[in-house]
Amino acid sequence: MKTQVAIIGAGPSGLLLGQLLHRQGIDTVILEAKSPEYVLGRIRAGVLEQGTVELIREAGAGARMDREGHVHEGVTLAFRGRRERIDLKNLTGGKTVMVYGQTEVTHDLMDARAAAGGISIYEAKDVAVHDFDSEQPRVTFVKNGEQVTLECDYIAGCDGFHGVSRQSAPRDKLKTFERVYPFGWLGVLSRTPPVAPELIYANHERGFALCSQRSDVLSRYYVQCSLDDKVEDWSDQRFWDELKARLPADVAASLVTGPSIEKSIAPLRSFVAEPMKFGRMFLVGDAAHIVPPTGAKGLNLAASDVYTLYHVLRKTYQEGRTDLLDKYSDICLRRIWKAERFSWWMTSVLHKLSDDEFGQRIQLADLDYYTGSLAGRTTIAENYVGLPYEKIE
Amino acid sequence: MKTQVAIIGAGPSGLLLGQLLHRQGIDTVILEAKSPEYVLGRIRAGVLEQGTVELIREAGAGARMDREGHVHEGVTLAFRGRRERIDLKNLTGGKTVMVYGQTEVTHDLMDARAAAGGISIYEAKDVAVHDFDSEQPRVTFVKNGEQVTLECDYIAGCDGFHGVSRQSAPRDKLKTFERVYPFGWLGVLSRTPPVAPELIYANHERGFALCSQRSDVLSRYYVQCSLDDKVEDWSDQRFWDELKARLPADVAASLVTGPSIEKSIAPLRSFVAEPMKFGRMFLVGDAAHIVPPTGAKGLNLAASDVYTLYHVLRKTYQEGRTDLLDKYSDICLRRIWKAERFSWWMTSVLHKLSDDEFGQRIQLADLDYYTGSLAGRTTIAENYVGLPYEKIE
Repeated sequence: MKTQVAIIGAGPSGLLLGQLLHRQGIDTVILEAKSPEYVLGRIRAGVLEQGTVELIREAGAGARMDREGHVHEGVTLAFRGRRERIDLKNLTGGKTVMVYGQTEVTHDLMDARAAAGGISIYEAKDVAVHDFDSEQPRVTFVKNGEQVTLECDYIAGCDGFHGVSRQSAPRDKLKTFERVYPFGWLGVLSRTPPVAPELIYANHERGFALCSQRSDVLSRYYVQCSLDDKVEDWSDQRFWDELKARLPADVAASLVTGPSIEKSIAPLRSFVAEPMKFGRMFLVGDAAHIVPPTGAKGLNLAASDVYTLYHVLRKTYQEGRTDLLDKYSDICLRRIWKAERFSWWMTSVLHKLSDDEFGQRIQLADLDYYTGSLAGRTTIAENYVGLPYEKIE
Repeated sequence: MKTQVAIIGAGPSGLLLGQLLHRQGIDTVILEAKSPEYVLGRIRAGVLEQGTVELIREAGAGARMDREGHVHEGVTLAFRGRRERIDLKNLTGGKTVMVYGQTEVTHDLMDARAAAGGISIYEAKDVAVHDFDSEQPRVTFVKNGEQVTLECDYIAGCDGFHGVSRQSAPRDKLKTFERVYPFGWLGVLSRTPPVAPELIYANHERGFALCSQRSDVLSRYYVQCSLDDKVEDWSDQRFWDELKARLPADVAASLVTGPSIEKSIAPLRSFVAEPMKFGRMFLVGDAAHIVPPTGAKGLNLAASDVYTLYHVLRKTYQEGRTDLLDKYSDICLRRIWKAERFSWWMTSVLHKLSDDEFGQRIQLADLDYYTGSLAGRTTIAENYVGLPYEKIE
C-alpha cells in the first residue's frame, strides 16, 4: 500500500489535515486504532478560534458549523461577586469564537472525507512507524488479522498524547516539559437551556467553575474537584449545589438544573514535546502538546499545527520548497508556547491553588487589573480568540 | 506638645506628607528615631513615577529633581540574547519616569521642611502611639533623656516595615499577607558611566541582572544571588564577571567597570497589612506594605498613600469631610494590590526561580508574548509608569 502522506489518527486534526491536503491533490491514508463510533463518543471542548473556523471551511467541512454553531462575541470572568465581560469582538478588531462541539467537527470532517473518497482505515491495530529518518518511511499495522505496510513520503502523527508517533521518536532527541495540576475538572452535560448566552469562567474561594453550552438546549458545566474524587461521589444534586455556590448570586438564581446525561472527571496537564519533527515524521496537536482546558486551546492548537503542516507540505509538493520542512517545528512551537502560557495563566488565575493567602490575593489582583485595564482586557481577548498564525513563506 | 498630625518617620513619605499638609496650613510634627545623617545614608531605588514627581513638585521640593533628574521614556527587558524596549512614553500617551535617587528626594524634602520652619525631631527614642482609638491620640517619646508627650488629631505611621506604628495595631484587627522569595539582590554602586541611558532588566539562565544609573557618572547594578551569600564572597571582579555573563553580549562588551563604592545584599519580600487605618492612626508606605524592588514600586507606592492621606486630611480639615477618613484604607489597598501584583510578576518573570523546566519556558513565553504584543507591552508600560491615582471626592 502506498500514499503520499500517512496520517496516524482520525481525530479532528488528522481528518482536517487529510481534507486540506486532498483538496490540493495530495494523497493521504488515515489510520485509526479505534472505531468511528469510539472516536465520535469522546466529548471535548467546543470553542473554536476564528483561525480554526476558517480552516474547517477551507477543508470544505464548514457548512453545518456555520448553520448550527454559535458565534460568541464575548466571554465573562466572574470573581468576588463581580462579573467582567471581555468584549472579544471590540477588543480584537472584530474577531470572535465559534461554539460548536468537537464531536460535531469530527463528524463533519468524517462526512467530508467519505464524500471525497479519502481512505480511512479504522480499527488498524499495532500501528508502528518505521524508517522516518530515511527517504522512504513506512507505517505498518494489522487490519482484520493481516499485516499491512503503508509506504509514504511523510508521516503525520495526529494520534494524540498516548499515540505511537511521539513514543517512536528517538529518546535522545526528544525533550519534554510538563506540569500536572493538583486538581481536576468534574464536567456535567445536561439537556437544559444554558444559564447564559456566553461562557462564564468563575474564580471562587470554593474553587473554579465554568458555565458553557453546546446548543440552546444542551449545557456543559464544570467545577474544580479533587483528583481523589470519584464520579460516584458526585450526585447530580451535589454537583448543582456546588456549581451554584461558586457562581455570582444572580447567575446561580437563574440556573436551570436537570439530570446529567454525561458526568466525568478529567485531570489537567500542561505538556510540550520538542522538537515536533523527526526526519519525515511530524507530530501534530495532542501528540506533541497538551494544555489544561481553561483557555479552550486544545483543539485550536492542533488546528494551528495542521495549518502549518498543510502549507509546508503543499509548498513542498507544489513548489519544491523542501526547505520549509525543517521550519515546521519552530513555527509551531512559537505559537504553542504562547498558548501554553495563556492556558497556564487562565488555569492559575481562576483555580483555587492552595491556602497561600498572598497567592489568593495576587489572583484577585490579577483579575482586577486585567479586567479593569483596556490593555489588560485586550491581552485576554487576543489570546482567547487566538493569536495570529505565522505565514508560511 | 501639640500638633494636628503627628508623623512618625522622617523618610521620604513622612517628609512628603509633612510638606503637603504644611502648604495647606495643617500643622505637623515629625518624629524620627534616627539622625538625619543615618536617614540620608540609606541607599534606595531611584525610579519615580510621574505621580510621585508631581507630588514632590506640589510639596515645593521639585526644583533640584527637575534640574538634575533624568527623564526616562523607556525601559528594556533582555532575555535569550534579545533586547525588547518598552516605549513607556508612546505606550502610555506621554507618561515617563524620572530617575532621581531616593536619597536626593529625602534631602530635598528635608531642606524644604527646614525652609518652611516645620518641626522635625530626630533621634526621638522609645516612640509609642497611644489612644488612637479615641478622639485624642497621643505619641510619647524620649528626647535628650526627657519623656515628651505629643497630643494630636491624627497619627501618620510613616515609619517603615520595622516601625512602631503597625506593631501597635491591635493584633485581632490586623491581617497580613506575605511572600518571601528564595533569593536576594546583590547591588553595587560604582563611579562609572552607566552602560546604557535607560534601565535594562535581564532574565538569564544564570539569574536576574539589572543595569540602572544614578547619574551620568554613577551606576547601580544588581545581580540575583543566593540568600546564603555574604558580601565578602563577592569581590568586585566576581561581581562584574557575573553581571557581564547575564547581559546580552553587546551590552556586556560596552560595560565600564570600576571599584565598587557600595556593595550590599538585600532580600526580596512581598508584604501587605490590612487595614491601613486603626481609629485615628494611618499606616503609610513601607509601614503597611513591601514590594520586591523589581518593579521599582516601593517609594512610588508610599507616595500614592501620601497622596491619598494628604487629600483625605485636607478635605477633613478644610471641608469637614470626616467621611473620607474611613475610605483611606480601601482606596490605598486597591492600588497597592495592583502594584504588588506587578512587582510579583516582574520578579517571577525575570528571576531564576527553580530548576522546573516547564516554569522556565513559561517565563520565556511570558516575556515573548508580553514584549511581542502591543497590548502586552502596554500592560508593562502602564504599570511601570504607575497606574492612575484614585480621585478623593
